[in-house]
Amino acid sequence: MIDLRRLLEPAHAFLAGVPAGTALAAEARTSDLDQLARSVAMDHPLPMAREVPRLIDHTILKPEAGPAEIEQLCQEARQAAFASVCVNSGHVERAAKSLVGSGVKVSAVVGFPLGAAATLAKALETAAAIEDGALEIDMVLAIGLLRAADYEAVAADIAAVAAVAHAGGALLKVIFENALLTPAQQAAACLLSVAAGAEFVKTSSGFGPSGAEEADVRRMRAIVGPQVGVKAAGGIRSRADLERMVRAGANRVGTSSGVKIMQEYARGQA
Amino acid sequence: MIDLRRLLEPAHAFLAGVPAGTALAAEARTSDLDQLARSVAMDHPLPMAREVPRLIDHTILKPEAGPAEIEQLCQEARQAAFASVCVNSGHVERAAKSLVGSGVKVSAVVGFPLGAAATLAKALETAAAIEDGALEIDMVLAIGLLRAADYEAVAADIAAVAAVAHAGGALLKVIFENALLTPAQQAAACLLSVAAGAEFVKTSSGFGPSGAEEADVRRMRAIVGPQVGVKAAGGIRSRADLERMVRAGANRVGTSSGVKIMQEYARGQA
Repeated sequence: MIDLRRLLEPAHAFLAGVPAGTALAAEARTSDLDQLARSVAMDHPLPMAREVPRLIDHTILKPEAGPAEIEQLCQEARQAAFASVCVNSGHVERAAKSLVGSGVKVSAVVGFPLGAAATLAKALETAAAIEDGALEIDMVLAIGLLRAADYEAVAADIAAVAAVAHAGGALLKVIFENALLTPAQQAAACLLSVAAGAEFVKTSSGFGPSGAEEADVRRMRAIVGPQVGVKAAGGIRSRADLERMVRAGANRVGTSSGVKIMQEYARGQA
Repeated sequence: MIDLRRLLEPAHAFLAGVPAGTALAAEARTSDLDQLARSVAMDHPLPMAREVPRLIDHTILKPEAGPAEIEQLCQEARQAAFASVCVNSGHVERAAKSLVGSGVKVSAVVGFPLGAAATLAKALETAAAIEDGALEIDMVLAIGLLRAADYEAVAADIAAVAAVAHAGGALLKVIFENALLTPAQQAAACLLSVAAGAEFVKTSSGFGPSGAEEADVRRMRAIVGPQVGVKAAGGIRSRADLERMVRAGANRVGTSSGVKIMQEYARGQA
């Protein structure tokens, strides 16, 4: 029997250098929520039709998806020049190979969809996904710890994944699962994500009780400000859905209906 | 920026020594399914009431569960002397501390509930869970690859997790998500799990389209034989549910209703 600790030693050593959750949580708490939230009602400009593909993460996350569906997803993404394909980490290698030279990135979900995996597991799933070719990481935060107001642990969990993602040259999106959170918990999640260095906050996994809600997107955009991305995901199935999310402040949309949405644009349907 | 490969190097080296999926899939294919399936109709004996707690994995897997619910789960498990508590890997450390000296083990779910995480990610989540105190690992197999009949990849995925689990002295249960599989795919999953050295096959995650079905449990027991465990999970909420599963061949049951079920036994309800 080998010593399992040897498997995890380098990860422990790496994560020992990551900023403590306590510091990040304190940093998040000093932000002025009232000031940040002033822009909630603001409508954001809609994109031109030709800009829409770069807003879309073309997505298949259902457990029964096999190699053929991943290949088709990648061909559609290449054809439409979507921003990325979003897949489970077990499909990253195949997707990355399929997309070589396309300009379409691979987004890998991590700790998905429950967000309840160990921090070390999330960090190492991130490393594995990047090794396989992912350039964007969509992690689910520790929902149970956030609801229990253990902001230090939530921040440390995000910071660990952020450290690995950034070391690998990947962007980090933090998935909230808003349907399980109060507005105040969503606000805390925004601040913790920004403090931990995430590039995007994201509404939902698509596996929760509900998907992206306009009010949540408005609140998230208002709190994170213009420098951090907001990704709306879950239940976005039409041009109208996409435009409602963009108007509310989303600058990335996760959907399995990207091809249909682009057809609506091509036909000039509003 | 550090070199991310250093994080995964020891895991790659360890997994290079694991039997190839091809060999395991070939081994599984040589089994005589017809002969194995003869005992499908057989009823297995029911346990005495005092034996029932040792059949139960006391379970909370919902994403919103926080520290307080995990503590309560562990107290209930200690009180009833259940076989284990079954939790997401992010709660293993807390549960293991809470259960010191109780004789109740911690089961950690891995690659849960979709089974679509990268093999390396599953293997390392297993290592992290064992480091935190898990003695049983409930992994979800690669559902999409099984449906695509890529038995080699499914076997390699299970074998990698088995190698880590066994190196850490933990048992391995392989979760199938039967609702997404045909009977033939379930049979293949049984054979692949046994060939890979799993100690248990398990019906469902509890997050799929349906839970444990009696016909599936009978088939799984008939195929794996008496030397491998069968865990029924998903939708088991009463003594009657538990007994139907045990009669069909289950020797472990995953349920969030363990306390209620033991109350039914105490009141002598059949």
